[in-house]
Amino acid sequence: MSVTSRDVARLAGVSQPTVSRALRGDGRIAEATRARIEQAAAELGYVLSEPGRSLSTRSTKQIAMVADFENPLYPALVGPLHDRFAEHGYRMVLLAERGDDKVTYSRLLNRSVDAAVLTTTLLDSSLSQLLIDRRLPFVELNRRSGLPGVNSLTADNAGGAASCAQLLISLGHRRIGAIFGPAHTSTGRDREGGFRAVLGEAGLAVSDDHTSRGGFAYEDGVRGFTQIMSASTPPTAIFCANDMVAVGALNQALSMGIEVPGDVSIIGFDDLEIASWPCFRVTTVRVDLASMARAAAEALVSLLQGKRVIDAAPYPTELVLRRTHASVTP
Amino acid sequence: MSVTSRDVARLAGVSQPTVSRALRGDGRIAEATRARIEQAAAELGYVLSEPGRSLSTRSTKQIAMVADFENPLYPALVGPLHDRFAEHGYRMVLLAERGDDKVTYSRLLNRSVDAAVLTTTLLDSSLSQLLIDRRLPFVELNRRSGLPGVNSLTADNAGGAASCAQLLISLGHRRIGAIFGPAHTSTGRDREGGFRAVLGEAGLAVSDDHTSRGGFAYEDGVRGFTQIMSASTPPTAIFCANDMVAVGALNQALSMGIEVPGDVSIIGFDDLEIASWPCFRVTTVRVDLASMARAAAEALVSLLQGKRVIDAAPYPTELVLRRTHASVTP
Repeated sequence: MSVTSRDVARLAGVSQPTVSRALRGDGRIAEATRARIEQAAAELGYVLSEPGRSLSTRSTKQIAMVADFENPLYPALVGPLHDRFAEHGYRMVLLAERGDDKVTYSRLLNRSVDAAVLTTTLLDSSLSQLLIDRRLPFVELNRRSGLPGVNSLTADNAGGAASCAQLLISLGHRRIGAIFGPAHTSTGRDREGGFRAVLGEAGLAVSDDHTSRGGFAYEDGVRGFTQIMSASTPPTAIFCANDMVAVGALNQALSMGIEVPGDVSIIGFDDLEIASWPCFRVTTVRVDLASMARAAAEALVSLLQGKRVIDAAPYPTELVLRRTHASVTP
Repeated sequence: MSVTSRDVARLAGVSQPTVSRALRGDGRIAEATRARIEQAAAELGYVLSEPGRSLSTRSTKQIAMVADFENPLYPALVGPLHDRFAEHGYRMVLLAERGDDKVTYSRLLNRSVDAAVLTTTLLDSSLSQLLIDRRLPFVELNRRSGLPGVNSLTADNAGGAASCAQLLISLGHRRIGAIFGPAHTSTGRDREGGFRAVLGEAGLAVSDDHTSRGGFAYEDGVRGFTQIMSASTPPTAIFCANDMVAVGALNQALSMGIEVPGDVSIIGFDDLEIASWPCFRVTTVRVDLASMARAAAEALVSLLQGKRVIDAAPYPTELVLRRTHASVTP
């Protein structure tokens, strides 16, 4: 006994195909007619059936966001993406990446979405390559695959990391450690590269026993800090892959009775909310995630409209000086 | 030039309808035949088209999770739900609640999902009532609407809050404050009710100038703590709506130079990871979110299989004593 488009047509005084076209957003329907139809649909509680609609138009008006929801970075991207897509009449579906790539792949390729925003891309990603082959429009946000011809919206990770190295050198640090991110992510690789380059120019290097490598989570900071600070001669500063790693390192310092920044400086990356909390006040690098997310949405909508999209330059970053850095005490 | 089910049928040596039935999980296809078809589909990179499939079976094998991704509670629910649904052959779609109820409603009612898990339910929720009317199977997780006949998986919030009140009374506290959650959520209401009941039995009450009310976020803790501690005679303990509120209160205490628990005890709720971090070590109430999420998935799958589901009793909670509570110093 559910309401059909025929019921709506009767109430609005139009034909049934006109109802479908109007609710699907067909531009050939006059504005007044569309308003009457939408009011009739609202009164009857009628909702356009997506499956039927998809078969007739081959457009679902849905865009997938592929994300890892355990990463605290992603909530900052969801809102801006969702809102910007909504302004263009698209709905966002969230696909959780949980090591089950096949499920994600099939969800992207089964025509249930028009396009995708990838936020967990690995370097030389097989998913990005597959989407290129299958011609599903997509953009990469925050991390990039590095594949040619792909639109990616990323921060200037190398530049941000370089400014951290410059800061530490200017504060007199010479024994500098690092908890780097995964080498198969562009964020991990670019931050490591930018940091090492500046140290190298100053004739410095991160020694092996002052280097840890892990993911981007709190636990990686705990583990990395413990390992590096148990070196025979510990460093006086540690550069972290991101803010969550830095927060893990700060908590572990507290557990081990090591003072920050008295004994060791700790630098984060991203400037998440948590970095600014009074108990942490992490010196970090600001990444404008909201602007990047909005630009990603705009780029994807343009691609869907058949426009050519110019690849954006990396978003500039900014050093945020809080209280986890200090000069070396001689 | 995309691969069709006809190509798969040819390679597997079966008819085209058999391919569709096998990939849709139809139990009448022999196991050996299904294996041959799946191998052929994999070789050709063929993925069953969801829209076509939906029209023929009226089942999408998709389940929606309605959540607020800015709430740090929800990442703890996503994984267990997703994995348990996957074991039963269902995929989970995440719907972000962002004050645009109409979009969420239409996504749930347009037949693009078979069922839903609601995690942001309000008391007397109009969404729950709508789903009952439209006969879409659903369960409520963490928060409940209180509507009759709805399956909900929740913690014993009243009992957990009661044990917090007992703890504070036993430590000698008499001037007790609270930052309560929203009164239109079952978690907010039940925690407030359980807490007030025990105080009442002891002849105590939370005075108005020691009461704050807000949401479940960090900022609510900052605001509530500031307000309550500026009372002419501040309380010696504050019960918080959840751990994020408690963490906000702890940070604000640091900003204001107020010692916890020396000057004031702070109690959280949920026992999120963050509550156990060395810099916080919040005394709190453990809620077994993972077990609740798995039970919610099982209940929903049972409903989809047409089974009767007995409403579960609230999940027991457990007081976790860390370092943010202390006896009143006379």
